[in-house]
Amino acid sequence: MIATKFGGILKSFGAVVKPYRLLSTYSQKDGVGTILLDNEKTRNSLSMEMMNSVLKNVVENQNHAELRCIVLAAKGHVFSAGHNLKELTAEHGADQHKQVFHKCSELIDAIRSAPIPIIAKVDGLAAAAGCQLVASCDMAICSDNSTFSTPGASFGIFCSTPGIAVVRAVPRMKAAYMLFTGLPISAAEALEAGLVSKVVSKDSLDEELDKICKAIASKSRSVIALGKKFFYEQMAMDVTTAYARGEQIMVDNLATVDGREGIKSFVEKRKPLWKHTD
Amino acid sequence: MIATKFGGILKSFGAVVKPYRLLSTYSQKDGVGTILLDNEKTRNSLSMEMMNSVLKNVVENQNHAELRCIVLAAKGHVFSAGHNLKELTAEHGADQHKQVFHKCSELIDAIRSAPIPIIAKVDGLAAAAGCQLVASCDMAICSDNSTFSTPGASFGIFCSTPGIAVVRAVPRMKAAYMLFTGLPISAAEALEAGLVSKVVSKDSLDEELDKICKAIASKSRSVIALGKKFFYEQMAMDVTTAYARGEQIMVDNLATVDGREGIKSFVEKRKPLWKHTD
Amino acid sequence: MIATKFGGILKSFGAVVKPYRLLSTYSQKDGVGTILLDNEKTRNSLSMEMMNSVLKNVVENQNHAELRCIVLAAKGHVFSAGHNLKELTAEHGADQHKQVFHKCSELIDAIRSAPIPIIAKVDGLAAAAGCQLVASCDMAICSDNSTFSTPGASFGIFCSTPGIAVVRAVPRMKAAYMLFTGLPISAAEALEAGLVSKVVSKDSLDEELDKICKAIASKSRSVIALGKKFFYEQMAMDVTTAYARGEQIMVDNLATVDGREGIKSFVEKRKPLWKHTD
Repeated sequence: MIATKFGGILKSFGAVVKPYRLLSTYSQKDGVGTILLDNEKTRNSLSMEMMNSVLKNVVENQNHAELRCIVLAAKGHVFSAGHNLKELTAEHGADQHKQVFHKCSELIDAIRSAPIPIIAKVDGLAAAAGCQLVASCDMAICSDNSTFSTPGASFGIFCSTPGIAVVRAVPRMKAAYMLFTGLPISAAEALEAGLVSKVVSKDSLDEELDKICKAIASKSRSVIALGKKFFYEQMAMDVTTAYARGEQIMVDNLATVDGREGIKSFVEKRKPLWKHTD
Repeated sequence: MIATKFGGILKSFGAVVKPYRLLSTYSQKDGVGTILLDNEKTRNSLSMEMMNSVLKNVVENQNHAELRCIVLAAKGHVFSAGHNLKELTAEHGADQHKQVFHKCSELIDAIRSAPIPIIAKVDGLAAAAGCQLVASCDMAICSDNSTFSTPGASFGIFCSTPGIAVVRAVPRMKAAYMLFTGLPISAAEALEAGLVSKVVSKDSLDEELDKICKAIASKSRSVIALGKKFFYEQMAMDVTTAYARGEQIMVDNLATVDGREGIKSFVEKRKPLWKHTD
Repeated sequence: MIATKFGGILKSFGAVVKPYRLLSTYSQKDGVGTILLDNEKTRNSLSMEMMNSVLKNVVENQNHAELRCIVLAAKGHVFSAGHNLKELTAEHGADQHKQVFHKCSELIDAIRSAPIPIIAKVDGLAAAAGCQLVASCDMAICSDNSTFSTPGASFGIFCSTPGIAVVRAVPRMKAAYMLFTGLPISAAEALEAGLVSKVVSKDSLDEELDKICKAIASKSRSVIALGKKFFYEQMAMDVTTAYARGEQIMVDNLATVDGREGIKSFVEKRKPLWKHTD
């Protein structure tokens, strides 16, 4: 368990400077990191401070040698209600609005660029940019009582940026339903549509996450990093280019220390011993 | 209720010039327009006349200030059987064939470009270009007895243009099944695949449409228009470009009259009062 | 029934030169070809020899005038376990590794380019490149006891090339789950995700394939060929280009011998008589 930083200490000294509030916390155990959205009173809204906190927790921990994957979880029955609308009033002005949306893109980019898979663990409502955040993780596992919505237009702000993530995750017919009506979809609908990877009962959620994280943690960190990077790269390529590039990626993978060890261990009928370095 | 135009009057005068037949009708109530395909004897085939009629009903009514969404429905147990094959005989020649398919593209483009969402209400069979029409609406809601197929190859004309819409709506494996075999898929399969947004029992179809239309009608017309436009634009962009552009769209949305009102009403904990103009 | 070539004869002569082993066989009946992966002891691994054998069976038979579709099936309870890892050891070197992955791309390209639909019939496990092979067929039908996985990373080789086919078949959230965890998904999950076209009980598998093949065989070979070619072409186009090109494809289709016959037979209310030649 790696101790969480800042916040706590500053608070105990009664610091006069505004402390970097602990809107999300980070902990790590057995190669699995957990970022916990911890601001129930704003329904884990993605304020600038929250986005900075999550971004910081991703960036500062992603290169830890022991780390194999990160679970992005939330305290309370709302995973995240989306942007903090109080930061989007006319008084704040266009420049600050721009900063909010740009920070959100930055966070999503950081998740995609991280060398380890980041898995959303959803147990409740994920709305608007909160739904975008789920759809932007590498995987999402949710309890069967979870719901997902993009209701921005009800507050005069169409979920245009959440729509970018949502329509790349689910069929257009489902994305349009969510965006135009603002009505929530159930966990079962989310699974059917592809917004999440798995749905389990609330009681089985921890167990399912554990199974998935252990499956990832048993593999080579460097091989997963190489695989994740190419996974997103090839998605943006036409299929011919993707295969031409993919052939070389496979050859390069086989030439790595853990690639050679993996094949060797298979032929020798023994467990591989990863070096994780490449 | 806005009265439907032409046809009826011309008929009552026994006009000698061929009247613009009323193959589809338009009515509007409480901000919800309904275009009704009304040519049961041809199974609502998409003849040139039918396509022109629907196109006209979209284009002429889409800018009505009170309008919030349009439901595209059909009379009878066939939503639409697709193109009128009698217009595709060798006698008509390549030029006229070209006009038929070009008109169809024009209609689909008009649906996508309309500033309000257009929702297919399907209660029966949607085949070939009829299936394409459903897949080209912004949303599709169907009864559980509905079926969908693209059987053109059975008549020597592969559903190549319907396939454009279908494979962008459903997984390639399902699209190929439909196109190569011509066999119908059920409403449940259509939902699972993403060809429709929702499936409900035949008895609940009107109620479901009502719920969806009310959800849209409660929002700002101008915000929905802005959102719909960008929704389709971003789908065609790579994800990085989409976010860069999306950030600005969100800022622009917040600067509109209804964007400001939406956020203000949220902060003031009251219902928004839309101006709908931008 | 067309007799399979090579192998048997060479074996019976006890040839000293290494015979072209019969890793897959080809048979044809009533317009339906069957390629059978027949190497149970390697779990139908996609060794160079196996890939060459399947490729050969596709290329040599695809232009047979009677042929309407090919079923790609497998002997035993493993459809295919993927590449033969013994061909991927460090001893074989990067050049030979490259040949393996390039041959696999070649095989996939041949399936896509074939003028007839190729349908995977899966009754068991399809793993890694075996899963890629299924996802690369035009359609896939599986029994409800089938499973699908991409567990390469467990052997130090991330399923990067299988991922190209998988993420183009299923939602990204499901593809990532398969690739990062290596855990199998069930036939039901595969159907929901779009990895297969249909799932039926093990007992109904032959009957389902029969129904699908008969539906294809009743159509014009040349029309299906034209339709398949454009199907994959338009998938890679933006939607506007796809429709512009699609309009012309429809016109061209109508001008073919079987296109004219199809429309004529419809108008004359009789069965079409295909010439199949264009």
